[in-house]
Amino acid sequence: MIKVSVVGAKGRMGRHVVDAVNGAADMQLALALDAGDDLTRITPENTDVAVEFTVPSVTLDNVLTLIAQGVDVVVGTTGWTDERLDQVREALAKAPREGQKAFIAPNFAISAVLADYFSTQAAKYFESVEVIELHHPNKVDAPSGTAIHTAQGIAAARKAAGLPAVPDATETDGGSRGQSVDGIQVHAVRLRGLNAHEEVLFGNAGEQLTIRADSFDRGSFMPGVLLAARKLASDAPAGLTVGLANFLDL
Amino acid sequence: MIKVSVVGAKGRMGRHVVDAVNGAADMQLALALDAGDDLTRITPENTDVAVEFTVPSVTLDNVLTLIAQGVDVVVGTTGWTDERLDQVREALAKAPREGQKAFIAPNFAISAVLADYFSTQAAKYFESVEVIELHHPNKVDAPSGTAIHTAQGIAAARKAAGLPAVPDATETDGGSRGQSVDGIQVHAVRLRGLNAHEEVLFGNAGEQLTIRADSFDRGSFMPGVLLAARKLASDAPAGLTVGLANFLDL
Amino acid sequence: MIKVSVVGAKGRMGRHVVDAVNGAADMQLALALDAGDDLTRITPENTDVAVEFTVPSVTLDNVLTLIAQGVDVVVGTTGWTDERLDQVREALAKAPREGQKAFIAPNFAISAVLADYFSTQAAKYFESVEVIELHHPNKVDAPSGTAIHTAQGIAAARKAAGLPAVPDATETDGGSRGQSVDGIQVHAVRLRGLNAHEEVLFGNAGEQLTIRADSFDRGSFMPGVLLAARKLASDAPAGLTVGLANFLDL
Amino acid sequence: MIKVSVVGAKGRMGRHVVDAVNGAADMQLALALDAGDDLTRITPENTDVAVEFTVPSVTLDNVLTLIAQGVDVVVGTTGWTDERLDQVREALAKAPREGQKAFIAPNFAISAVLADYFSTQAAKYFESVEVIELHHPNKVDAPSGTAIHTAQGIAAARKAAGLPAVPDATETDGGSRGQSVDGIQVHAVRLRGLNAHEEVLFGNAGEQLTIRADSFDRGSFMPGVLLAARKLASDAPAGLTVGLANFLDL
Repeated sequence: MIKVSVVGAKGRMGRHVVDAVNGAADMQLALALDAGDDLTRITPENTDVAVEFTVPSVTLDNVLTLIAQGVDVVVGTTGWTDERLDQVREALAKAPREGQKAFIAPNFAISAVLADYFSTQAAKYFESVEVIELHHPNKVDAPSGTAIHTAQGIAAARKAAGLPAVPDATETDGGSRGQSVDGIQVHAVRLRGLNAHEEVLFGNAGEQLTIRADSFDRGSFMPGVLLAARKLASDAPAGLTVGLANFLDL
Repeated sequence: MIKVSVVGAKGRMGRHVVDAVNGAADMQLALALDAGDDLTRITPENTDVAVEFTVPSVTLDNVLTLIAQGVDVVVGTTGWTDERLDQVREALAKAPREGQKAFIAPNFAISAVLADYFSTQAAKYFESVEVIELHHPNKVDAPSGTAIHTAQGIAAARKAAGLPAVPDATETDGGSRGQSVDGIQVHAVRLRGLNAHEEVLFGNAGEQLTIRADSFDRGSFMPGVLLAARKLASDAPAGLTVGLANFLDL
Repeated sequence: MIKVSVVGAKGRMGRHVVDAVNGAADMQLALALDAGDDLTRITPENTDVAVEFTVPSVTLDNVLTLIAQGVDVVVGTTGWTDERLDQVREALAKAPREGQKAFIAPNFAISAVLADYFSTQAAKYFESVEVIELHHPNKVDAPSGTAIHTAQGIAAARKAAGLPAVPDATETDGGSRGQSVDGIQVHAVRLRGLNAHEEVLFGNAGEQLTIRADSFDRGSFMPGVLLAARKLASDAPAGLTVGLANFLDL
Repeated sequence: MIKVSVVGAKGRMGRHVVDAVNGAADMQLALALDAGDDLTRITPENTDVAVEFTVPSVTLDNVLTLIAQGVDVVVGTTGWTDERLDQVREALAKAPREGQKAFIAPNFAISAVLADYFSTQAAKYFESVEVIELHHPNKVDAPSGTAIHTAQGIAAARKAAGLPAVPDATETDGGSRGQSVDGIQVHAVRLRGLNAHEEVLFGNAGEQLTIRADSFDRGSFMPGVLLAARKLASDAPAGLTVGLANFLDL
């Protein structure tokens, strides 16, 4: 049994993590802590893996505390910069327990991670490609970070393969062609009823390949969270791993 | 048997019309004329309906000539303005034969016409709506005239029903949200392998309605052209009709 | 303000109705009753419209009781037969209050109702058509009642228009072609993560029309429930109305 | 410049190959032969790669002749059995030129090959999966060979990962649930206007991954044919290779 503690257990995501851990046959819930609780109650004796889903303003402190406690940690909070990731790497290098591990991911939905990965793989085989992301209308930024990441990956793969720019004869446009991210057009749709969705369209003469990921609700992150926890508890490498694709056998 | 003459018979669309007429059990091909041919060879004696698919620069003259000949005409050439349509109406009013008819449509694909019509019907029942049009990358204008028409129809229907603006919390965007047409966001995708496609997405809390029309090739216009020819040869009203939706029993 | 009482208020759907009524600016929640509560507490004095979402075994009794109380009722419980509907009609005919109304619908999702309606309208314009319904894997019956209803409507519209059978050269099949409902092939997909979805595909040479309704969760029924309650409280005709399409201005 | 000869040059596919070779900057058309022509005119002196698109009844003889001529060959004709493939392998083993190569593929559409490959990769990460293939209504077999191949690959990947059967509570069905291929449900749609399409739907709680390949016309095979010819003319291994996925860097 993998002993899992949850930090941010009363938050929107944390509650889902508690339920997911309780529902997993190979896991048991250790401590469920939230704001105001003492994180040093989490120790290697009672916890194999801590899952941290809080807010950007406190996540770095939480993670550093957990590492100093000698506990491996899965982090789902967003807002990580390269500088902050380096602080985690340094903390892990001088952690109390040998081989300590941390895992941080911007997106735990397996479908989204696979769509992103497959899109990069497919990129060099198609003359045309565009990205459409679709989200609920309360989202404040457009396009989504995931869509930007996918477009950047596709652009890099096309460049590495020596592909020219995508064909586009558009002469007159009032903005309908979307935003260019490294030369790849990205479109953002906002629609009540949706949650988080991404569709990548590839085209050659006479053919199309479409890869689409739908995240209907927060529960869609749980398989990825449990997968990461299991990886940390078994064969994940020591140190920091960033991105769920590293834990999929692709 | 409906006797059909084709004007522009050697053009990209005209050739399809000739084939479609030849393949229709209730029609027979009368004259197949092209640039340089004398249109006055087309008369009520040899032709029930003329189908005109040429270019914007000559279509008005062709149509006026055919009307003066006493022949009913289906027009597929694009580029009609209100002023030019009025010239056709005037010509019909003083046409040699009583009850003469003309039909002009920007889009003969039945799927596209129905998608446009259903979108207008559905408009007032949804909080959110956006339009995505997808075309081959050789298209010079974006968004398509069809998408603009659809968005305008949706906007008018929402306004008539007293609906507020669509919800949209976007604060930061580099252009990915597309073009606003009367308050409806329109997105244009350009992809090798595609021809002409439109998708309208409607959303309420917990539900989505999607209406999509795909025109895979020019052959997709032929059922609409034959339908229009049959209508002119039977129960279409005298005078000018604009738009295929008028000939569908909706 | 429309005074709405909810019967089955603690059930899965009833809780959503209570929330929806509380969230509607033009409604106020009167009584929220559940199993064991006395339905005769609901009267014309405290209630304009009762919404009943219970189970097939008790819904008829509940509806007859509410009608005898002189209260108009919106019914979302399933399992209605023609015989049971007739019992409701008879009860309404001799109801205590003049012009009493009841409304029963198998599906309150506006997107599903529109998809069904548009499919019937589109049916006669296409050579081919098939229906795909997709649901969560806990559903015990296949295909869904909604898909059967849609296929029957399409088949009837094709027949009325004199269309021949859909083209199909299949000679060898191990069951992949799905189930024929009045000559229309219906396919049922069961997938974890889905809720209730229907897609109708229409095809002519060179073109396709796709109409798709997605119901992501139970909340998707609420706009339809509120719309029905408002109709009963205003201009719905006296007597029994079956099906939400009757309350849409189509 | 790669010198390419075409066998079956007047056939439906062969004509497309001739056009594609003529349009490729790095290729030149050598001989374009058809039924009745002498295949021994194709030699290593005038041809680097022969592309064979004929019919199942003559393809084996053609391929053996070309191998005996010392020419590498790309084969697009269908109907290959394990026994026939072995005959090709034997012929290559004793071919006149050292390192001779042959390539046979059931499907040259890159989108279809990638969809099949990605589906196998994704298989073990999802609780549910179903396959829908959609074709023109003149197709005589259902489901398509490609869909069967995809379902078998998914089933094998799930088995290798120790996944249980897909969840399915269906108790009552008149055939709508489709055909089980190694435990994976496969659905076949037949629709006028379509050519060859495949959609694979994967589902977990709260999320869906969709991978779709559209082949709109025969031209969709040409990028794959040219890619195979280039591979034979460069770094493909000696002997027989079966399947385009082997020539993609995946």
